Amino acid sequence: MVTTVDLNSDMGEGFGPWTMGDDAALLDVITSANIACGFHAGDPDVMARTMRMAQSKGVGIGAHPGFDDLRGFGRRRLPRTHEELTNLVAYQLGAAQAMARAVGGRVRHLKLHGALANMCSEDLNMAKACYGAVLAVDPDIVVMVLAATAQQQAMEELGGTWAGEIFADRAYNDDATLVDRSLPGAVLHDAETAAPRILNMLREDAIIAESGKRIPAKIDTICLHSDTPEAVKMARELRRLLTEAGITLQKL
Amino acid sequence: MVTTVDLNSDMGEGFGPWTMGDDAALLDVITSANIACGFHAGDPDVMARTMRMAQSKGVGIGAHPGFDDLRGFGRRRLPRTHEELTNLVAYQLGAAQAMARAVGGRVRHLKLHGALANMCSEDLNMAKACYGAVLAVDPDIVVMVLAATAQQQAMEELGGTWAGEIFADRAYNDDATLVDRSLPGAVLHDAETAAPRILNMLREDAIIAESGKRIPAKIDTICLHSDTPEAVKMARELRRLLTEAGITLQKL
Amino acid sequence: MVTTVDLNSDMGEGFGPWTMGDDAALLDVITSANIACGFHAGDPDVMARTMRMAQSKGVGIGAHPGFDDLRGFGRRRLPRTHEELTNLVAYQLGAAQAMARAVGGRVRHLKLHGALANMCSEDLNMAKACYGAVLAVDPDIVVMVLAATAQQQAMEELGGTWAGEIFADRAYNDDATLVDRSLPGAVLHDAETAAPRILNMLREDAIIAESGKRIPAKIDTICLHSDTPEAVKMARELRRLLTEAGITLQKL
Amino acid sequence: MVTTVDLNSDMGEGFGPWTMGDDAALLDVITSANIACGFHAGDPDVMARTMRMAQSKGVGIGAHPGFDDLRGFGRRRLPRTHEELTNLVAYQLGAAQAMARAVGGRVRHLKLHGALANMCSEDLNMAKACYGAVLAVDPDIVVMVLAATAQQQAMEELGGTWAGEIFADRAYNDDATLVDRSLPGAVLHDAETAAPRILNMLREDAIIAESGKRIPAKIDTICLHSDTPEAVKMARELRRLLTEAGITLQKL
Repeated sequence: MVTTVDLNSDMGEGFGPWTMGDDAALLDVITSANIACGFHAGDPDVMARTMRMAQSKGVGIGAHPGFDDLRGFGRRRLPRTHEELTNLVAYQLGAAQAMARAVGGRVRHLKLHGALANMCSEDLNMAKACYGAVLAVDPDIVVMVLAATAQQQAMEELGGTWAGEIFADRAYNDDATLVDRSLPGAVLHDAETAAPRILNMLREDAIIAESGKRIPAKIDTICLHSDTPEAVKMARELRRLLTEAGITLQKL
Repeated sequence: MVTTVDLNSDMGEGFGPWTMGDDAALLDVITSANIACGFHAGDPDVMARTMRMAQSKGVGIGAHPGFDDLRGFGRRRLPRTHEELTNLVAYQLGAAQAMARAVGGRVRHLKLHGALANMCSEDLNMAKACYGAVLAVDPDIVVMVLAATAQQQAMEELGGTWAGEIFADRAYNDDATLVDRSLPGAVLHDAETAAPRILNMLREDAIIAESGKRIPAKIDTICLHSDTPEAVKMARELRRLLTEAGITLQKL
Repeated sequence: MVTTVDLNSDMGEGFGPWTMGDDAALLDVITSANIACGFHAGDPDVMARTMRMAQSKGVGIGAHPGFDDLRGFGRRRLPRTHEELTNLVAYQLGAAQAMARAVGGRVRHLKLHGALANMCSEDLNMAKACYGAVLAVDPDIVVMVLAATAQQQAMEELGGTWAGEIFADRAYNDDATLVDRSLPGAVLHDAETAAPRILNMLREDAIIAESGKRIPAKIDTICLHSDTPEAVKMARELRRLLTEAGITLQKL
Repeated sequence: MVTTVDLNSDMGEGFGPWTMGDDAALLDVITSANIACGFHAGDPDVMARTMRMAQSKGVGIGAHPGFDDLRGFGRRRLPRTHEELTNLVAYQLGAAQAMARAVGGRVRHLKLHGALANMCSEDLNMAKACYGAVLAVDPDIVVMVLAATAQQQAMEELGGTWAGEIFADRAYNDDATLVDRSLPGAVLHDAETAAPRILNMLREDAIIAESGKRIPAKIDTICLHSDTPEAVKMARELRRLLTEAGITLQKL
């Protein structure tokens, strides 16, 4: 039974004049920030500002690399060789490390973004290409993996430190994949529904599918969305409910 | 009197399908490679290939950050705040460090590119913004500075390790700036003319201007151009002539 | 005395996943839309959506070219040759024309964006380079110029059709330039203050500077800002007050 | 039996400081130039230079749109909706039209590039999305289609003017697709082998597959490659051999 958990959220996903989400408010709620590295979103200035905020609020700084696809926000599946994936991930992680160092912090964890993450949750060799690059750059980093997917298997095979992640607001299929967004009940819209579900998963060390099926899983961190107008409100509520239930919220 | 000197050249300045210069051939001549970091040229794949070549030939790997201006090849003077310069340089250095680590090497030195370098050779505060970022990311790195310019002064004030650089093939004004390319004699086109001039500078620990004036300078490295068709031939000749004159060529 | 005037606003300044301003609401207020062309903001999909909305609401479609500087939103002054400016403007205008045709409309006017516009309001030859390209591509287009600046002079010399523009919410200096934003009173924040000022300018065919000085000017269109939260409210109020004062609002 | 044919080649595929192929030399050989539009290669300055050269040599100017993927040179298959394809193609065609007008010419034809072309040769609906946009922008343009593929069928269904294209140097499968480059004989390396094969195809109004099979085809234009070192030599030889065989070479 899990009594301590991390809350993570994607951050720094503006670009130049454009903003996305209310990072400042969310940084008061979460314990780990996944900060975009300039390929699917973010730029050096946005990164620096976001990392400085995270650092000053004691939130863990993480690298959040994605496909080099600003217009598609890293959400389109792109054809890349394993060699290209290796370079793509190493480059972004390194940039994030240096930016973190320049603001007096350090990159503690890494989480893949969008389509890159989705593809790696399905394709073991692709996940190993990405995570192999991560560990070559920093063998001590914590890699956030989608619990019970090929991402987790890749880290188990590579032998580095990983943290299992579940989504706060998404329903699961029996194979630990997410229920398609277009189906009813796929997305939970309020903390009152989401919190008990999460608490059960933490108590049982398992993802609980929509069907009720239990999929044993190490759950270390919970992903809160950051890019909808209600994101901050739901995040605050969830934090309150988890705390009231005796869960300690703490960065990785 | 200098008896050991480094030969450096800009490298990895292709992008996607486009190439520039004959890096493989030049890597057999030089001792330090300044590798573009993806902002004015280069991309993660070009960087990885170039670093792997440099590493396998025992050539020192350096980061070569420039303005974020692919179309202008980093040669256009762009308006940027000191904060933006800090972030620009830290980001690129970090990316290079991680790429180097992923190929089993490390970034030993850094040299600014194009308009960014030119502006920093004239503007002390701008140079300090850039180099301050470099030292915040890696206090042990060697920074290549244009000898006897504001770049050198910035490093002297900041207190890090620096190497003074002269150009193999360019004539100097009395204030240590380069003679304008449009003037006759501004560019030396053969090693036979360039070598004796360099040897005199090394012997006298001074830049020798066109007028004959001596400007005292610590000379640690000589820049060879990489982007002209004759670059490799001239570089080979120069290496031969310097070696014959008893100079040891060795990376920083 | 002007009795019919156009209201224009910058539009389509999102990019990929990022939005800017409430274009749909503003399109109910204005009569001409200046639509970003993908260089400082906008992309083909944003352009198509924005043009389709403008077309369906009977708002005039205009091309709004800027510097190729997404991160700087076209607000940074960049060094470009006249040849490069010519190509930059022709390219963007052509792209806009084709996009407009594809949604069943056509580009009726053109207005330069940001730093490109500011530089052309000060530099006659630069303005002529830009507008020369515009007229070479479409001799029948209406060019919006900042009234009483080098932009206007360029169009007078080139001989094409132009519309003089004033800002709804900015105070003017005695030389028809804008009062610096950092000074008190430089920006008007409510329609109640802005409307009478505009009405006086329309009645007197002159820009009225803060000092009270009159600068004779042909006023054909009034620029409403689109990128602040209060933009839509102020635009609606202004439209109401101008209409009540007997001004007809009509596209160019 | 065809007695007049067009020779086309891809052009203007440099970007910023980078060049590709010897456009000036090839423009003395071909009759139609497919000029990159800035998405997979080319930029406004490269386009203007290339179009000016084509115009002065009497070579037909064509738009050559591709995926927005500079690093991949438009050769990677990317996921795009039909709506996005429509906008992608209209934007690039419009930009090319304006650039051509600005140099005193006009866009006479359009040919899709790389992966976009390949996908449209296999997928009828995708081809119709692209060509529908083309015809909406310019109903009088000539669309170059890969003969006997879905590209051709799309134009037949849409009802615009099209020209059938074969490759000078590639072997064909029985279904009119190209033999995979990795197989022996897939690419012809000299004009002496390629010319008789082409002459037979022109005489028989058919693509002749490697197996000898005839696939009836309207052949209006022959594609010569531009991006290899031997491209110019082979193109010159081919032109000479076709002319000697009585074929008139003439732009569309």
